[in-house]
Amino acid sequence: MTRIDRASLEQTFHEQARIGATPRGGLTRLALSDEDKVIRDRMVAWLEAAGCAVRVDRMGNIFGRRPPAPGGEALPPVVMGSHVDSVPTGGRFDGVLGVVCALAAIRALNAAKARTRHPVELAIFTNEEGARFQPAMLGSAVMAGKVPLEDAYSQRDRHGVRLVDELERIGYLGPEPCAARPMRAYLELHIEQGPSLEDAGLPVGVVEGIVGIAWSRVTFHGAQDHAGPTPMRTRHDALVAAADVVKAVRHIPLEIGNDMVGTVGWLDVHPNIVNAIPGKVVLTTDLRAPSEADLDRAVADLEVAARDAAEAEGVRIEYESLMRVPLTRFAAEVVDAVEGAARRLGVGHRRMLSGAGHDAQHMATLCPTGMVFVPSIAGKSHCEEEATAFDDIEHGANVLLHAALTLAGEA
Amino acid sequence: MTRIDRASLEQTFHEQARIGATPRGGLTRLALSDEDKVIRDRMVAWLEAAGCAVRVDRMGNIFGRRPPAPGGEALPPVVMGSHVDSVPTGGRFDGVLGVVCALAAIRALNAAKARTRHPVELAIFTNEEGARFQPAMLGSAVMAGKVPLEDAYSQRDRHGVRLVDELERIGYLGPEPCAARPMRAYLELHIEQGPSLEDAGLPVGVVEGIVGIAWSRVTFHGAQDHAGPTPMRTRHDALVAAADVVKAVRHIPLEIGNDMVGTVGWLDVHPNIVNAIPGKVVLTTDLRAPSEADLDRAVADLEVAARDAAEAEGVRIEYESLMRVPLTRFAAEVVDAVEGAARRLGVGHRRMLSGAGHDAQHMATLCPTGMVFVPSIAGKSHCEEEATAFDDIEHGANVLLHAALTLAGEA
Repeated sequence: MTRIDRASLEQTFHEQARIGATPRGGLTRLALSDEDKVIRDRMVAWLEAAGCAVRVDRMGNIFGRRPPAPGGEALPPVVMGSHVDSVPTGGRFDGVLGVVCALAAIRALNAAKARTRHPVELAIFTNEEGARFQPAMLGSAVMAGKVPLEDAYSQRDRHGVRLVDELERIGYLGPEPCAARPMRAYLELHIEQGPSLEDAGLPVGVVEGIVGIAWSRVTFHGAQDHAGPTPMRTRHDALVAAADVVKAVRHIPLEIGNDMVGTVGWLDVHPNIVNAIPGKVVLTTDLRAPSEADLDRAVADLEVAARDAAEAEGVRIEYESLMRVPLTRFAAEVVDAVEGAARRLGVGHRRMLSGAGHDAQHMATLCPTGMVFVPSIAGKSHCEEEATAFDDIEHGANVLLHAALTLAGEA
Repeated sequence: MTRIDRASLEQTFHEQARIGATPRGGLTRLALSDEDKVIRDRMVAWLEAAGCAVRVDRMGNIFGRRPPAPGGEALPPVVMGSHVDSVPTGGRFDGVLGVVCALAAIRALNAAKARTRHPVELAIFTNEEGARFQPAMLGSAVMAGKVPLEDAYSQRDRHGVRLVDELERIGYLGPEPCAARPMRAYLELHIEQGPSLEDAGLPVGVVEGIVGIAWSRVTFHGAQDHAGPTPMRTRHDALVAAADVVKAVRHIPLEIGNDMVGTVGWLDVHPNIVNAIPGKVVLTTDLRAPSEADLDRAVADLEVAARDAAEAEGVRIEYESLMRVPLTRFAAEVVDAVEGAARRLGVGHRRMLSGAGHDAQHMATLCPTGMVFVPSIAGKSHCEEEATAFDDIEHGANVLLHAALTLAGEA
């Protein structure tokens, strides 16, 4: 039975982890940064060395295709992919592990001289994290027709730099259309980013879908004033209203239950000095649920809580929905292929939902899609401590390889 | 009776207000910025044109001395002063109005060919706001021996730029010692920055002292993690703990009453992205009270609330006291001189405490000190809407002039 070369996989992993490495073992490799250019160039070189034909599309998404058995060139490919960008001071595994394992799978096919009916492709999507340009999963969103290319191009980072200019600067403004095309299936290996596989003592999660996600931005406009001579009774403090929203985002998911989660991850205070009453606060809310009904309820409860907070403090509120991704159910055929591979390999596994959004959720609108999860130590991710044991990674990569083989068909 | 020239005062005011002007009628003139250099150069030119000898000390504090009647050269001066730096998007009045009115007073003495027994000086103190370098009131603090010069020099702004390097860059690293010297009295005119004079319909406040002020910095170290797959029960969210502190800083002053106030003005979230649970939050607290006992109680209550918040969320806390300025009582002689001037001029006034810290509080440790307040429209300050009516300014400047004359003695 064809297997991943563990030593080569580990070596490739460690090599990528040096690009944008932080002193404490993490990674800062923001989308379209200099570090992103270096990892992209490296991946392209590795793909070409593995006999793949590499194309880059207008969003900078990279595709490397392993040729199928003769006669299969026109058949739709089985695509394995993920992303190589990270959040600031993030971990070495999130995203890039799926790319490294897909590369290891292609190398394993080469080593075994395996001939597949359908081509097998590796995909690297641009700006998955949404840490530099909004929204997250932008490369796959444009490919899926969810975001117009021109809208993506005009996104700006905090410093006002446009995405399209950065694509061009790092040499990844490709010529290929960024659009739907026939694909046999899409498979993505990713770290779980939660504790459930580790808690269950299982190396592989067979992902059946992705929770529904709702992002909002709340802006409170209060009255900037001096922190000393302004009596408490006359204050309109934007941060006091914002604190109510932070507490509501903690409270609402606990009240609803059913594995719902909620986070205020971003909060900016203006003017942000010790002795001025905050005149303006901008914050984001991130709500996720395995049930659309629960998500609807949470979104509605949160808006009420935010408007109540604004009214109580006498501040003006702007409430904007940034993103709503409905609950995604993956194709039974692909979920079964992943589960079958795990079973045949004798790898402990269980079916589960993903709590995080992934490029797979946009790809699921284009072709039969599934994911393979591997455990996150202590459930940690988006931090420097993020880690997965190589024994688990090896299991996951072998499951990815054999699910891809099942879907591509041995020729 | 000698009077301020209102037209000249208005003209000088409007001229200074153009330096660092914001589009919406405010001012951004951070300490030791390019704009600060321009206003300083202008003030030095105005002082020299008014016949004053100008000296700059090692902290960049500027002193312009009007000569006394012959024989008085060795007598300690009556110093009138304030500051010319602003907070970001602050107002056109805070600080600089006291400097403009002091200049108007010196010009009025010149116009009247008044001879004073003691010299009369104008002082401009460096970095009063504390918006760029901490702590606030740094120039007067070094002069009063509260902060060693070397500590002040090594303060860095958010971009890591050292104060001493900026002093040198803008040409205000002067040769004079920054230290206590004999002074007959210190007088500072300032906007009230609160609503009480406007509410009472009075143009002048005779300031008897300054409330006690306590600044702290609270840092919460939580667990940065992914906002999706991390269950609510396993979270250690630094921002949730911080929200409790924001609410406590609102609640504690209301509970204590007695005109106590409390503000969280600065709050930074790390890594500050939509889909990461905040791993670290740094915030400042600003508590003020007209009673030392109330301030002690509030500081203690706040530390308990912050530690409780950390414990409830399972995050680590660092709690640092940044500054504690005890309640300042001004010298009866100077308060009486201000009150007497208002009475002789027929200007409506009342005695009051200042809710804001001022350079006067450090000067009060060096010599008999007092302040003149003028009303803030709608109590607003540290914002672009900050304003004071010129009728009130004229009254205040005349009270400043005559209080200075009383203390300097007519020769």
